[in-house]
Amino acid sequence: MANKLLQSRRQFLQKAALGGTVAGSFSLPIWAAPPQVNYAEVLPESMRLPGRGFTNYGQPSSYEKDIIRWISANQDAPGNGVSWAPLHDLQGTITPNGLHFERHHNGVPDIDPANHQFLIDGLVNTPLSFSIDALKRYPQQSKICFIECGGNSNSGWRSTPSQAAAGYAHGLVSNAEWTGVPIKLLLHEAGIQAEAKWAIVEAADGASLNVSIPLDKLLDDAILALYQNGERLRPENGYPLRLVLPGWEGIVNVKWLRQLRLTDKPVMSRNETAQYTELMPGGKARQFSFIMEAKSLITSPSLGMQLPDNPGIYQVSGLAWSGRGKISRVEVSADGGQSWVKANLQQPVMDRAFTRFSLPWQWQGQYAVLQSRATDETGYVQPSREELTTKRGTDGFFHYNAIVSWEVTEQGDINHVYGF
Amino acid sequence: MANKLLQSRRQFLQKAALGGTVAGSFSLPIWAAPPQVNYAEVLPESMRLPGRGFTNYGQPSSYEKDIIRWISANQDAPGNGVSWAPLHDLQGTITPNGLHFERHHNGVPDIDPANHQFLIDGLVNTPLSFSIDALKRYPQQSKICFIECGGNSNSGWRSTPSQAAAGYAHGLVSNAEWTGVPIKLLLHEAGIQAEAKWAIVEAADGASLNVSIPLDKLLDDAILALYQNGERLRPENGYPLRLVLPGWEGIVNVKWLRQLRLTDKPVMSRNETAQYTELMPGGKARQFSFIMEAKSLITSPSLGMQLPDNPGIYQVSGLAWSGRGKISRVEVSADGGQSWVKANLQQPVMDRAFTRFSLPWQWQGQYAVLQSRATDETGYVQPSREELTTKRGTDGFFHYNAIVSWEVTEQGDINHVYGF
Repeated sequence: MANKLLQSRRQFLQKAALGGTVAGSFSLPIWAAPPQVNYAEVLPESMRLPGRGFTNYGQPSSYEKDIIRWISANQDAPGNGVSWAPLHDLQGTITPNGLHFERHHNGVPDIDPANHQFLIDGLVNTPLSFSIDALKRYPQQSKICFIECGGNSNSGWRSTPSQAAAGYAHGLVSNAEWTGVPIKLLLHEAGIQAEAKWAIVEAADGASLNVSIPLDKLLDDAILALYQNGERLRPENGYPLRLVLPGWEGIVNVKWLRQLRLTDKPVMSRNETAQYTELMPGGKARQFSFIMEAKSLITSPSLGMQLPDNPGIYQVSGLAWSGRGKISRVEVSADGGQSWVKANLQQPVMDRAFTRFSLPWQWQGQYAVLQSRATDETGYVQPSREELTTKRGTDGFFHYNAIVSWEVTEQGDINHVYGF
Repeated sequence: MANKLLQSRRQFLQKAALGGTVAGSFSLPIWAAPPQVNYAEVLPESMRLPGRGFTNYGQPSSYEKDIIRWISANQDAPGNGVSWAPLHDLQGTITPNGLHFERHHNGVPDIDPANHQFLIDGLVNTPLSFSIDALKRYPQQSKICFIECGGNSNSGWRSTPSQAAAGYAHGLVSNAEWTGVPIKLLLHEAGIQAEAKWAIVEAADGASLNVSIPLDKLLDDAILALYQNGERLRPENGYPLRLVLPGWEGIVNVKWLRQLRLTDKPVMSRNETAQYTELMPGGKARQFSFIMEAKSLITSPSLGMQLPDNPGIYQVSGLAWSGRGKISRVEVSADGGQSWVKANLQQPVMDRAFTRFSLPWQWQGQYAVLQSRATDETGYVQPSREELTTKRGTDGFFHYNAIVSWEVTEQGDINHVYGF
C-alpha cells in the first residue's frame, strides 16, 4: 500500500513534462494549495525604495539568522566539543563554509600563514619544510567530498531514540570542494625510504593533536587542502592547511597541519587508542577503522517539522554518502521497512560525496514510518539499527551508520523511533 | 620552444607517481625551494594555548580580509553598479556565497519571505500565487552552473588593455550549486495556453527590473532557486527567490523574483533594448543574445602577481566555461598563441559550470605571453580579440569573450597586453 503512495519521481516528472495533458491527469492543486491571484494587493514595499548597496563580503539574510550550527562544548574547556551542521535546513549537496560542522579538541588556533611551516621528516631521504607560499606554487587538485566525524550520530547507540533535529543528531558531516596539493608530490620530493609504512601527522593546535595514517592512503588520494569551496580554508576547518583524506573519518583529516613524519609503525596516540576506536560485544575494540561506511538520512520531512493539515503529495528528500565510493542506490520506505521504493538520485553522483535523493510521497493523514537505505558501488547496504547493534553491540560510540526512522503521526508530527 | 617548456600535467603526475625513481629523474627542488628543516625552531605559539571556541556561523580568517569583491557603484545611486568576484584569489570551481559577484540596478531589497508571493499569470488557464513555504513543498533539483553578467569583461572592448587584476576585470561571473523548483512544474499546474511564447519576468526590487524570456527555456531547464551552495539564497543573489537559467546571461537570471506573466511576444523592456544588446559594426544591434559563449581565463599567474626570482616549474591554472554545455578542451600558450598545449581539466567536467584547467610551466626568466583558449562540446572555439572585434566591431559593451593575454617580463612582472 505504501508502495502505491510512493511515486517514482522520474515517472512524475515525465507526466509533468507532457504539459497540457497534466491539468487533466492531476487535479489542482497537485502539491500545495496555491490560492488564486489577488490583484487587489498592492506592490511590495521593496519596490518603492532603493535597496542597500554592495558588500565586499556577503552574509546570509537576517531572516535566516536561526539557521546555525548547534554547539555542544565542554563547560570547563569551551574549545573542546562539536558543532553540528543544520542538515535539516539545507538543500542540494554543498555545505556552505559558514555552516560546515566543527570538532575541536582544544579550540581553533589563530595561525598567521606568513609564519606557518609544514614539515616532512622521519623516514625520508631529505627532510623538507614548506611555507604556505611555497605550497601554492605546486600543482593543485580539487575534490568534492564529505568529511564525517567518526562520532557522528553516536546518540544512535543510546537505548532510547534521541529527539534532536536531523542535523543536530547527524550533522557532524559536511560536503565541500577541497583544493590543494596532492601530498604524494611532496613525499616523492622528500624521497620515501623503504621501511616507511605509516605517517605520524601533527596539528599546530592547543591539543597538539596527532594521529597515525597508513602511507598507502597518502600516496593514493590525500590532498594538502588550502581552499574550501573556492576560498581559503576557514579557521575552524584547519586554516591555513588541512589534510583531506576522502572517505576517511574526520579525525585523520588533520586541521592546522604542521608536521608529517614517516615511520614504520603507528604512534598509538590518544586519538587512536582511548578515542576513535569501537568497543565490540566481546569487550575488544576495533582500531584504525578509518573508512566511513555508507549512510543516508531523510532531511525533509524530518523531526521537528510539522506536516500542514493539507493532505497531498509531499517531497521526501535527503542525503546519502559512502566512504568507499559512489552511492549506487537509495531506497525509501513509508511503512517502516516493509516495502521500499527506489528514490531519484541528483546527478552527477560523485565519488565519496553527498548524494541528494528525493521521491514524491502521498500523505493523506495516515500514520507512517519514513526510512531511507543507501547502497554504495561496492554493494554495501546501510544496516538497520538491529543489524548494526547485533554485530557491534550497544556499547559503541563511533561509526554509527544505521537506518534512521522518522515516525509521522496522523496529526503530522514527526518523531524519531526505534524498532523498525 | 614554448612547447618544450609546457609539460603535460598528466605526464608529470605519472612520473611523480613512480615514487623512488622521481628523486633521480628530477633534481630537487622540483617546484619551489623548500629549505632543510630547522630543528632549532620552537613550537608555534598556537600550540601553547587553547584556541577560541565554536561559532554558530563561521567567517573567513582575519588574515584573508583583503580577499573581497571589488565594488564599482554609481556615486549618486549607490545601489546601481557591480561587484566583481576575486577570481585571481580563488581556487577550485565553487564560488563561496560571500564572494559571488553582484550586479544591482537599484540596490538589494530587504524582503521578508513570510510576506513574499510569486505570481504566475497571463496566458495560463489558472493564475496562481505561491508563498515561499508552498514552493518548498514542491520537488527540488540542483544544478552546479555559472552565472555570468552579459557585461562581464567589457573593458576588453576598450582600445587599450585594462590593467585590473584577473577577477576585477573578468569576475562578473561566479559558479554555485543552485537548488529549487523546476518552473515547468508550476507552469503546467497553471496550464499553459497555446498562444503563450514568452514570459515577462519581474523582480520585487526598487528598479522593478523586468525582462522577456522565451517560454521554451523555462520549459527546458529553468529553476526557481531557493538555495545557493546548500543554504538559502544570499540577499544580493535574489533572496528569497531567484530564476536560474543555466548558461544564459545574468540579467535574465532574475533575482527577488515576484511575477511571471506568459505572453505571445516580448515586452521590449529597457533591459532588452537600451541595455543588454550588442551594437554591431553596421550600426544595428544584436538583441536577445541570451547564451554566454565559451570563455576561459588564466587566474594564476595573472596580472598583479610577481613571479619570484626563482626559476623553475610554475603551475598555470585558470577557469573555462560555456553557456552551451561542457568544456571539451582548454589549450594554453606561453608564446602569445604561436604554439598551444592541451591543459589538464579537473574532473568531473560539468555542463555549463566552471571547469578548472592547469598545466605545469617552466619559467627560466624568459619573456612570455600566457594565453588560454577554450573549446566547448559544440565545437565552438573561444576567439582571439582580433577575431572577436573583426566580427563584432569595437563599439560593443556586452558579451566579450576573447582570449586574454598575460605578458610575463624577464623580471617576472605580469601585464595585460593586446595584439596576440
